[in-house]
Amino acid sequence: MQGKHLGKQTVRFNFPPSIRAYASIVGKKEGEGPLKDYFDEIHEDTKFGQSSWEKAESQMQTLALQKALTKAALSPAQIHMVFAGDLLNQCIGTSFAIRGSEIPFYGLYGACSTMAESLSLAAMAVEGGFADYAAAMTSSHFASAERQYRFPLEYGGQRTPTAQWTVTGSGAIILEQNNQPPYIRGVTTGKIMDLGITDANNMGAAMAPAFVDTVISHFQDSGLSPSDYDLIISGDLGTVGLELASDLFRREGYALGDKLKDCGTMIFDLEQQDVHAGGSGCGCSAVVLCGYLLEKLKTKKYRNILFCGTGALLSPVSTQQGESVPAVCHAVAISGESGCM
Amino acid sequence: MQGKHLGKQTVRFNFPPSIRAYASIVGKKEGEGPLKDYFDEIHEDTKFGQSSWEKAESQMQTLALQKALTKAALSPAQIHMVFAGDLLNQCIGTSFAIRGSEIPFYGLYGACSTMAESLSLAAMAVEGGFADYAAAMTSSHFASAERQYRFPLEYGGQRTPTAQWTVTGSGAIILEQNNQPPYIRGVTTGKIMDLGITDANNMGAAMAPAFVDTVISHFQDSGLSPSDYDLIISGDLGTVGLELASDLFRREGYALGDKLKDCGTMIFDLEQQDVHAGGSGCGCSAVVLCGYLLEKLKTKKYRNILFCGTGALLSPVSTQQGESVPAVCHAVAISGESGCM
Repeated sequence: MQGKHLGKQTVRFNFPPSIRAYASIVGKKEGEGPLKDYFDEIHEDTKFGQSSWEKAESQMQTLALQKALTKAALSPAQIHMVFAGDLLNQCIGTSFAIRGSEIPFYGLYGACSTMAESLSLAAMAVEGGFADYAAAMTSSHFASAERQYRFPLEYGGQRTPTAQWTVTGSGAIILEQNNQPPYIRGVTTGKIMDLGITDANNMGAAMAPAFVDTVISHFQDSGLSPSDYDLIISGDLGTVGLELASDLFRREGYALGDKLKDCGTMIFDLEQQDVHAGGSGCGCSAVVLCGYLLEKLKTKKYRNILFCGTGALLSPVSTQQGESVPAVCHAVAISGESGCM
Repeated sequence: MQGKHLGKQTVRFNFPPSIRAYASIVGKKEGEGPLKDYFDEIHEDTKFGQSSWEKAESQMQTLALQKALTKAALSPAQIHMVFAGDLLNQCIGTSFAIRGSEIPFYGLYGACSTMAESLSLAAMAVEGGFADYAAAMTSSHFASAERQYRFPLEYGGQRTPTAQWTVTGSGAIILEQNNQPPYIRGVTTGKIMDLGITDANNMGAAMAPAFVDTVISHFQDSGLSPSDYDLIISGDLGTVGLELASDLFRREGYALGDKLKDCGTMIFDLEQQDVHAGGSGCGCSAVVLCGYLLEKLKTKKYRNILFCGTGALLSPVSTQQGESVPAVCHAVAISGESGCM
């Protein structure tokens, strides 16, 4: 057996795939936030030269993939598989971006967990010998998400304090087997958790239990502990969900302290940028990973991180039909050095 | 390397995963069609006891997974990963079905290619050693699809001659490594093809080029030829798309003759059941595979088949914005005997 299955949910790679290149593309607001120096491209035009918000989102993925390929010094023809998805109905942000690339494509839907999901599957594809190079990618766009999930922007609806702000951005990663850090050490696949939250504007609270469950499963399955990581980061719970998660961890006997962070609370200045509980959307954890986090692994500020994508698997239809909000969280162990896990 | 990559798009498994169990659940109309004797359950109540069409679709997946688990003599706790998706916005048919199962879950969006996509990824998970048991599943429901993609049923809109009828059904498969046929010999991952079809009611024509491209790539990558297969089956092109595909194959020098079939033309009686160009929807190829095809592999009517899921990656929004219909096709080589590929 190539990969090694630990417990019910965790895979430890015997030959950890390497991140060959990564790229992040963001919009104007994200380019004014605290992580602005880490993104590859900041676009002032949030339509990215396109005629609709949906096409703008596709264009971001096109740019992110192109940038990652350029940084990897690879052509699209060398990529054996791309795993990607987004928040739009039928994932059209992704399909129309990949259409012209001729790269074999597996479409995913994991809501805001998509960066972690795509990275998990791309890592398995490379370690299993199914792909020499595999790409993982996702995106979100504030304007396309608002009008699909909430209200048309023109309506000017008031946002609740627990609401999160969908990040306009796209991130892409290319994996290979090359024995160089940063490595994907292992992954923990999430189960769907639903504790009955029915407020579609409080997704952080709906996702927190899934995050805590996956992280604890990761520790139990792998035999690792919080001390093996410099950072355990969710994407994206926002302030409300992060506080709830911190509390849930404490109750389960895990004191994570400063190691516990959330992409959604880092990408914006929560005091100045009027984003309420923080950032969200597939693109949020994607660009925080493909901008800030991987850079900090390279420069050794972090040596080992557990990157946890959290997705709320609701739709406007399920909310209208009175359903609660199911959530999932996938964890990816990324290491900037040899050893560990 | 565990799996072996051939050419750009194809994986040949060195240790082909086995299909341990499979199950199919269908609605009333499907239970009146030519394949009725092959389904595990036919439900007269197309609401499956639920209060909405969307919940009915979830219920079908719940039943399909339960049935497959029962036939496999496995508990949900023994399944390491389930790969699944459906046609509904945000794939809620799937999320709400898997919510109660506690099975680690990767959500997919491949439109009507989802059965082939989920089977491909589940096979890689098992052969890579990432899962002892992996499940692949999908569904579609005529009524939930009609109102999301086309018109409310109450509107009574007239259907065009090229339109296909979304199948109400769900199929589930459980894979393991056990050295017993039927085996998954290999998979060919599809690229997105778009030849500019803009008629969202002629998805067969939009998908035919993707089907032909993936099948020819499969032959080129693997060194296999049509003579290595008893059946090359698309899911689902319908009559219009199948005729177009047949023509495209001929032009490329492949005479497939009677080996070329389509799940959408088999599941209904096209003369009697008023389904125009045939069946479609993720559930169509899923129940034809998990009903008829796998049974025929067991009884040796077929020895080797190439099961090709075809998906039209459009959304009502992309159609409204004037976009053409991108399509993808994933091929899975399934064998009822040792040897071959």
